[in-house]
Amino acid sequence: MEDKYCYELKMKVRDYECDLQGIVNNANYQHYMEHTRHEFLLSTGVSFADLHNRGIDAVVARLNIAFKTPLKSGDEFVCKLRLKKEGIKFVFYQDIFRLPDMKCAIKAQVDTVCVVNGRLAESPELFAVLEKYISE
Amino acid sequence: MEDKYCYELKMKVRDYECDLQGIVNNANYQHYMEHTRHEFLLSTGVSFADLHNRGIDAVVARLNIAFKTPLKSGDEFVCKLRLKKEGIKFVFYQDIFRLPDMKCAIKAQVDTVCVVNGRLAESPELFAVLEKYISE
Amino acid sequence: MEDKYCYELKMKVRDYECDLQGIVNNANYQHYMEHTRHEFLLSTGVSFADLHNRGIDAVVARLNIAFKTPLKSGDEFVCKLRLKKEGIKFVFYQDIFRLPDMKCAIKAQVDTVCVVNGRLAESPELFAVLEKYISE
Amino acid sequence: MEDKYCYELKMKVRDYECDLQGIVNNANYQHYMEHTRHEFLLSTGVSFADLHNRGIDAVVARLNIAFKTPLKSGDEFVCKLRLKKEGIKFVFYQDIFRLPDMKCAIKAQVDTVCVVNGRLAESPELFAVLEKYISE
Repeated sequence: MEDKYCYELKMKVRDYECDLQGIVNNANYQHYMEHTRHEFLLSTGVSFADLHNRGIDAVVARLNIAFKTPLKSGDEFVCKLRLKKEGIKFVFYQDIFRLPDMKCAIKAQVDTVCVVNGRLAESPELFAVLEKYISE
Repeated sequence: MEDKYCYELKMKVRDYECDLQGIVNNANYQHYMEHTRHEFLLSTGVSFADLHNRGIDAVVARLNIAFKTPLKSGDEFVCKLRLKKEGIKFVFYQDIFRLPDMKCAIKAQVDTVCVVNGRLAESPELFAVLEKYISE
Repeated sequence: MEDKYCYELKMKVRDYECDLQGIVNNANYQHYMEHTRHEFLLSTGVSFADLHNRGIDAVVARLNIAFKTPLKSGDEFVCKLRLKKEGIKFVFYQDIFRLPDMKCAIKAQVDTVCVVNGRLAESPELFAVLEKYISE
Repeated sequence: MEDKYCYELKMKVRDYECDLQGIVNNANYQHYMEHTRHEFLLSTGVSFADLHNRGIDAVVARLNIAFKTPLKSGDEFVCKLRLKKEGIKFVFYQDIFRLPDMKCAIKAQVDTVCVVNGRLAESPELFAVLEKYISE
């Protein structure tokens, strides 16, 4: 399965992302995943900010995260991503692995949809760009 | 179902929580829910920080959020919560409603477990306090 | 001096704002102060988001914070504000006090300017609204 | 002056750091600077988290930021740092430049002190490590 990842981004925990338990606060995993999706888009030539300025907003409709191993101060990690299309949704499977031991930190599924000028809609533009990354 | 909520907390969107789409960034809903859980705990006499200092960490094992209506600058909202026990897990059902129209912003399920001195475990102390809030 | 405060807002530390030192991460004081300024504006009938949508952006030009006493999990506090006009700048003096002992957490000076349609400018609209709050 | 920088770290704006004005929210510059200081410490073999666990907390006593040019979605930047010692304080001069045009985003001075077991104190351990980076 893992060979189906179409994009990955390395990052490192920043201390301000850790909370009083000394581990990365859960909300930051959403940040890590969002940044990875946006960098993935950029790698295909699409800017999230530009999309927004042209009235196309990619938004998350549903999110499912399994937290496996907490990341800590100093940890490096890689956020991997693969993409499926289900009806109107682009579904991102995003898994984060701690480096260098590749222990799984989180496994997540992120269902996204497009809102074009305020209405739920297909974006042919996005589909044309992302089509080749969609796995079965 | 909604009559089973055992706790609610009113909050207001802060502008720094909004992103370049002009709506609350998704990760902040985790913040809202975490803060509501911790205030709920406090209302029962339990402090998340004190628990941590005594070696008891409540951690999120799984999170499932359905995003319904985005909150925006100036919006007030109420975060409601009910609690179930499933095996070793405390499962929080947390729904956020925009005020005053009570439009649903998100519906979420947050599975939490206790880590006592580094190991997954039941916390009799937490159970004793939370037992009366558990719905069937 | 303190009698010159023209606005105050009570808040409570949220646990996700604390970092691995167990105290509120410094950056959050900027959040607290920004939220207080925006609520102050709202109390005068002015919305920061609306201003932005009409091409008027209030931006911070300079910030000076003295950190006195760190806030911790569970602390409640009040963020007080007074306002001066210096040339083109609106200067906010913002002090945060822990409740209930009123111990000073931070003292800050926040110099703000208006950017109208991308250029530094006076905003007669803002001045008309804020004039009565300006202290000598 | 700029040749006195003793450390620099490249980063890239993440979209969640931008607010409804479409620019990086001010509080994130504190995050960028904190992360840069901690990475600088790590480069000298000192971990902020380890220091904390051994009862030594480096804390910010005063912060002064001049905001010059806002960073936006997609911007890359470099955060440069130089260090002075003034009495008991380690003073960090931290400047952020947008890449590749090196336009100055912020200039800041961050006064830090050490709290050892809860009391303001010199940390001979930190001084020994940082001494060679101190500029006149």
